[in-house]
Amino acid sequence: MNDFPDEDALVKEIARHFLPSRESKLRLGIGDDAALWRPHPGFESVLTSDWFLEGSHFLREKHPPDSVGWKCLVRAASDISAMGGTPRCFLLNLALPAVATGKWLKGFLVGLRRAAKSLDCILAGGDTTRSDRILISITVLGEIREGQEVLRSGARSGDLLYVSGTLGAAECGLRFLRKSAGRANLKNAAVRKHLYPEPRVELGRWLAEKKLATAMMDISDGLSTDLPRLCAASGVGALVEPERLPVPRGLDRQSALRLALHGGDDYELLFSVSPRRVSLLPEKFRGLRLTKIGEFAAGRGVRIIGKNGKPETLRAAGWDPFRQKSR
Amino acid sequence: MNDFPDEDALVKEIARHFLPSRESKLRLGIGDDAALWRPHPGFESVLTSDWFLEGSHFLREKHPPDSVGWKCLVRAASDISAMGGTPRCFLLNLALPAVATGKWLKGFLVGLRRAAKSLDCILAGGDTTRSDRILISITVLGEIREGQEVLRSGARSGDLLYVSGTLGAAECGLRFLRKSAGRANLKNAAVRKHLYPEPRVELGRWLAEKKLATAMMDISDGLSTDLPRLCAASGVGALVEPERLPVPRGLDRQSALRLALHGGDDYELLFSVSPRRVSLLPEKFRGLRLTKIGEFAAGRGVRIIGKNGKPETLRAAGWDPFRQKSR
Repeated sequence: MNDFPDEDALVKEIARHFLPSRESKLRLGIGDDAALWRPHPGFESVLTSDWFLEGSHFLREKHPPDSVGWKCLVRAASDISAMGGTPRCFLLNLALPAVATGKWLKGFLVGLRRAAKSLDCILAGGDTTRSDRILISITVLGEIREGQEVLRSGARSGDLLYVSGTLGAAECGLRFLRKSAGRANLKNAAVRKHLYPEPRVELGRWLAEKKLATAMMDISDGLSTDLPRLCAASGVGALVEPERLPVPRGLDRQSALRLALHGGDDYELLFSVSPRRVSLLPEKFRGLRLTKIGEFAAGRGVRIIGKNGKPETLRAAGWDPFRQKSR
Repeated sequence: MNDFPDEDALVKEIARHFLPSRESKLRLGIGDDAALWRPHPGFESVLTSDWFLEGSHFLREKHPPDSVGWKCLVRAASDISAMGGTPRCFLLNLALPAVATGKWLKGFLVGLRRAAKSLDCILAGGDTTRSDRILISITVLGEIREGQEVLRSGARSGDLLYVSGTLGAAECGLRFLRKSAGRANLKNAAVRKHLYPEPRVELGRWLAEKKLATAMMDISDGLSTDLPRLCAASGVGALVEPERLPVPRGLDRQSALRLALHGGDDYELLFSVSPRRVSLLPEKFRGLRLTKIGEFAAGRGVRIIGKNGKPETLRAAGWDPFRQKSR
């Protein structure tokens, strides 16, 4: 059993990994009752909060601690980029068992710091407590220029449906990880995508600035779960063309398609583009493929072109913590 | 076993309890990837995040669900008022077992809504997931006029040490609650203080506006744990006069004193006042007693006048989740 640090010592250990930068809109960070954050004039704050729980969102024996640190911040930041915003600072609520306050915590903080640095997103505060499992709750505050936000509700009938990157790769990586004994094989691209996903911050901001996306969200629970949410918010339906889906490589067609439709944790952007503006959209944005996978239509519900060439209802089979027991 | 709602249904149930008001700086609330919040020009955002976990911070069989809802928001809001700020909106991360999604959730939301209304603090978003225990993580965003914030670091040697209200009452209430069988006795003022604490938002804001407090924090872990934190941040020591402490009524002197020194969960404000400004401080602020309990001194550490009239070291024995197993 590790020696147990008191709360103040634990906060100091966390703070040590996140030294404040000199130039910052974070006027006051860790160590007081609350943090102070001053956005630019003309900019709006964007707020999001995410769970990342041992047993539900990660497995201590399968996920390296630095992946847990990286991913818990990246997935919350991904929500900010799905609005077209830029993540700026975050609050970390961390509950730990005694055995995780040593080596595990160090690894976690290394991954978290790497994500924070990569996103240029500053630790502003949070709360620590003891628990029998590792519990993580992250809040990210971002900012966005006034009037530039892209909501889920802006898609119109006739708009084209796009995704960034590949769908299903992270889920594919999770399956490799579960099957493999011992340490994660980081040479496998799908495993890397599952452990260290890259949020699409620059793409989201660019789509918002150029006013190319009429609606946008990130795919965290799988296309078949998330697309109906975007459709419901916009009051439109959608038709997906399965042969266009950017599926993971090296799998049979059927498995690849299932993963692309229902796999979670990709943190790719799903967005709608008006046909009048679509010529302004490149095939790739800084090396990242942008793929048209269907279009929006009048009515409700999401359909997909079936084997016989006719549209069928697409059933949600992505990840919903209240449907599946754990992943 | 309750029928389990899916995540979207659970979010709708939560949203139903928190209808947005028409006039609001919350430009976008629940239902998109993130919330949008626009503070006034000249005002700063204040951020805080708190755990509230079953088994650590509350007991499902002892604490009524509406108290859990009330308290989880109030204790985070208390951190905002300890800066002199005003809570404005919050994010709720909620993880629930199936059995708590019915009646327990309704009761919880009623208490949470009551706190939100009382604080004029709007639900802006959050995250829900399944868990075998109830886990709550709350982030509150507040605002404060630029330059008006009161930090922990502003106390100077010679400043007078003040607290609001009574110390130890909430801990006293917790003891009643633990001893009693069945439902909480709400006729007992100490039990009420434990279950439904009132954050000192107006007092905090007033002390900040009038520039009366040189340093301030809220007492959540007990005076003997929190005062050393304020002293360390300010680089000063303090001397507490035990006979001045505003202790709970109806207890023998020794028990009352122990509770006032070490009891947690009071959410009273602890603040320092310069001797030059102390004449501007009333004995009561809107009915709430303000009591001088000692003063700050050069050096380090917190001391208390002992039985023999001589200063002794005050040992921290408040609540620290990493020291005690649970409360």
